[in-house]
Amino acid sequence: MALIVQKFGGDALGDKGKGREADQSDLSGASLIVEKFRRVAQVVKRSRDEGHSVVAVLSAMGDTTNRLLRMAGALNPDSPARELDALMATGEMQSIALFAIALHQVGVPAMSFTGVQVGIRTDELFGRSRIREVNCDRLRTAIANGQVPIVAGFQGVSDNGDITTLGRGGSDISAVAVAAALHADACEFYKDVDGIFSTDPRIVPSALKIDRISYDEMLELASLGAGVLHSRSVEFAKNYGVPLHVRSFLHDEPGTYVIPEDKSMENVVVSGVVPKTTEARLTLEELPDVPGTAAKVFTGLADADISVDMIIQEEARGGRNSISFTVEKKDYGKALEISKAVVAELGGGQVTGDDTVAKVSAVGVGMKSHAGVAAKMFKALADANINIDMISTSEIKISVLIKEADAKRAVEVIHQAFEQEMIDAKAQAAAHRDMAEAGA
Amino acid sequence: MALIVQKFGGDALGDKGKGREADQSDLSGASLIVEKFRRVAQVVKRSRDEGHSVVAVLSAMGDTTNRLLRMAGALNPDSPARELDALMATGEMQSIALFAIALHQVGVPAMSFTGVQVGIRTDELFGRSRIREVNCDRLRTAIANGQVPIVAGFQGVSDNGDITTLGRGGSDISAVAVAAALHADACEFYKDVDGIFSTDPRIVPSALKIDRISYDEMLELASLGAGVLHSRSVEFAKNYGVPLHVRSFLHDEPGTYVIPEDKSMENVVVSGVVPKTTEARLTLEELPDVPGTAAKVFTGLADADISVDMIIQEEARGGRNSISFTVEKKDYGKALEISKAVVAELGGGQVTGDDTVAKVSAVGVGMKSHAGVAAKMFKALADANINIDMISTSEIKISVLIKEADAKRAVEVIHQAFEQEMIDAKAQAAAHRDMAEAGA
Repeated sequence: MALIVQKFGGDALGDKGKGREADQSDLSGASLIVEKFRRVAQVVKRSRDEGHSVVAVLSAMGDTTNRLLRMAGALNPDSPARELDALMATGEMQSIALFAIALHQVGVPAMSFTGVQVGIRTDELFGRSRIREVNCDRLRTAIANGQVPIVAGFQGVSDNGDITTLGRGGSDISAVAVAAALHADACEFYKDVDGIFSTDPRIVPSALKIDRISYDEMLELASLGAGVLHSRSVEFAKNYGVPLHVRSFLHDEPGTYVIPEDKSMENVVVSGVVPKTTEARLTLEELPDVPGTAAKVFTGLADADISVDMIIQEEARGGRNSISFTVEKKDYGKALEISKAVVAELGGGQVTGDDTVAKVSAVGVGMKSHAGVAAKMFKALADANINIDMISTSEIKISVLIKEADAKRAVEVIHQAFEQEMIDAKAQAAAHRDMAEAGA
Repeated sequence: MALIVQKFGGDALGDKGKGREADQSDLSGASLIVEKFRRVAQVVKRSRDEGHSVVAVLSAMGDTTNRLLRMAGALNPDSPARELDALMATGEMQSIALFAIALHQVGVPAMSFTGVQVGIRTDELFGRSRIREVNCDRLRTAIANGQVPIVAGFQGVSDNGDITTLGRGGSDISAVAVAAALHADACEFYKDVDGIFSTDPRIVPSALKIDRISYDEMLELASLGAGVLHSRSVEFAKNYGVPLHVRSFLHDEPGTYVIPEDKSMENVVVSGVVPKTTEARLTLEELPDVPGTAAKVFTGLADADISVDMIIQEEARGGRNSISFTVEKKDYGKALEISKAVVAELGGGQVTGDDTVAKVSAVGVGMKSHAGVAAKMFKALADANINIDMISTSEIKISVLIKEADAKRAVEVIHQAFEQEMIDAKAQAAAHRDMAEAGA
């Protein structure tokens, strides 16, 4: 008898990412959407039948948001942010009303709520607002009346009544915020995947579905673009201690729980292996080894709105050192230009770069307590004759920069190196949970 | 330096009624809509350039509302009314945001307002709400700041924050309500026609554009389905004394002013001639001429939700009389059935009917002061060998029921009979206005 927030995204409600873009105006698209809403309605109905109270949080259908943005862009490339937010928010408003209609059809009383109607108060940063407060009064009343409140994700309302949107990953954040405000027992994310995997199953067919993962690991995976969830929503969940559950809307099997770190997780040395091929490397050679050099380099890039990911500075030799870093490939040319200007100004040497690199990372909380993880990873790469360009590490992550052509192979060999440990840890955790359940 | 409310409907913003249904998802539809928004933006800009303050009220684009209703119907034929309203209201929300974006593009500062944001308070009769109050605070502030407020038509908000819609003609009503609340100088309706015509120009090519018409005449025309505006909005305008102006969004020529009746209008004996071919006639013969007979007949029809239009009862002969009336053709079969049952119960005679009839009406305030209008109309029909089945009259309207096959010809000959008077009255009124302007 739990209170569960269930989030359904554009992939659950539309035809996004399935090779074609269907929407409600196209007849076959419309019937496809009807079918999807019916399936999602069954997910909610099943949870209700099991005795749970459910609050649903929805994204816009399929491609709706992009379609609206294209319309706006065609009218005015420099659209006012307030109006773009008001426009985009209609996508979720359509979803929630249609979903309430679909739930009534299967006998589940439901009621839709826009961001304004709930009272999801945000600041006024249109397009990237932050939630300040979620008013739960109307949601609690609906739940008490046996209804399923359906909340429009991605949107909120500013103090003076303007409609705001939360930016990328916004609907996920809405779901976590509603779950936190209601002190829900879980926040479930229904996706077209079975959960979070130890690596991309298209690269490594033996990739394992992760049963349980800590917020911090999930954050690392999310920031590598491989976490299914957006990192802002994971951060939010971590801060408010909301248990997340990433699962499939196609079947009833459990997916991946994202929860606070516990002792048993330390057995998992590596949870995930993630490639990222969108970065390029730059190296600034023979810079003067004096204070302020690094600051000058990165201030120039920051001023041009270029984000830097990995940064490595070598030990100075002869009063000179070199700095290497990675930027997104799209920023490569501009970063080269800026770097050359800065190096010239500083009286440095060459600037070299490479935009055919890949970053491959291994993430796992177990690294904190297990020695030799990096060594094992490097050995696996060496055995496969893959050269390492750069290395950077955090408490629970090791990243290497390699040739882009080696990325797939690198993921395979690193995953292989830790696969047996993953399998053992998974089995051990399952046995542990079975024992705990038997004892309870 | 006037304050003008400008209403733009689905025909001004989409591709409705032009042989194909375009909408924002279809690429050519999207560019067409962009073009339409740009044109409408120029209408507002022109008024601003002339020094006027403008408030825009918008419908949904083209076919949007029907498309959403089809989606809902596919999900659940018995959709909850609250959710249907929430769903439909998104159409206008999209229009207003896109229009604000389009106005910014031509340098006109604008701000969109949903029914909730304005504070268009209604009752809770979802799908057919009535406006109780329009809060003008945010609109007045925007106007004072030199902005064009853009209001979502058709929608309001109930006391507990639910989104409501106003039913058929709802956006027109929103425009008049906003104009009344702001004490606007005029409420302009931009249409794809030049104004209101003395009859359908497709039937009578010499049909005259009406320059000025009284609320009451317009109400008669609207209730005959020929007034371009919905009768509820005309009633609202009459009650609050809001001057209306029906005009084209394709050019800057004045259209038809709908204003309080004045002396000069009495010259116009007949303003409009309107055919209506959607009704069917029933005649209940030899009913007992005792009190309560008519009540029994029409109570039965009302209980079945059948609206009755013309009603005629003949003088009783031999303690018996007959009643004839018209209903919408779609209700004809049911009305026949009910009538037969009632007649049997009352011990009456035959029930006959005809669903191949047409009603042709002549409307004009001048009828009140001019004798012989009916005679002239009947003579025109007689000369054309058109037989009259039923006649009904009001203070400013004469309607005849004839064979449907004669409808077009009837409109022609009636219009012809009054055409010269229309032309003379129009010229006289124009001369009068010119003199008034010259004297001012």
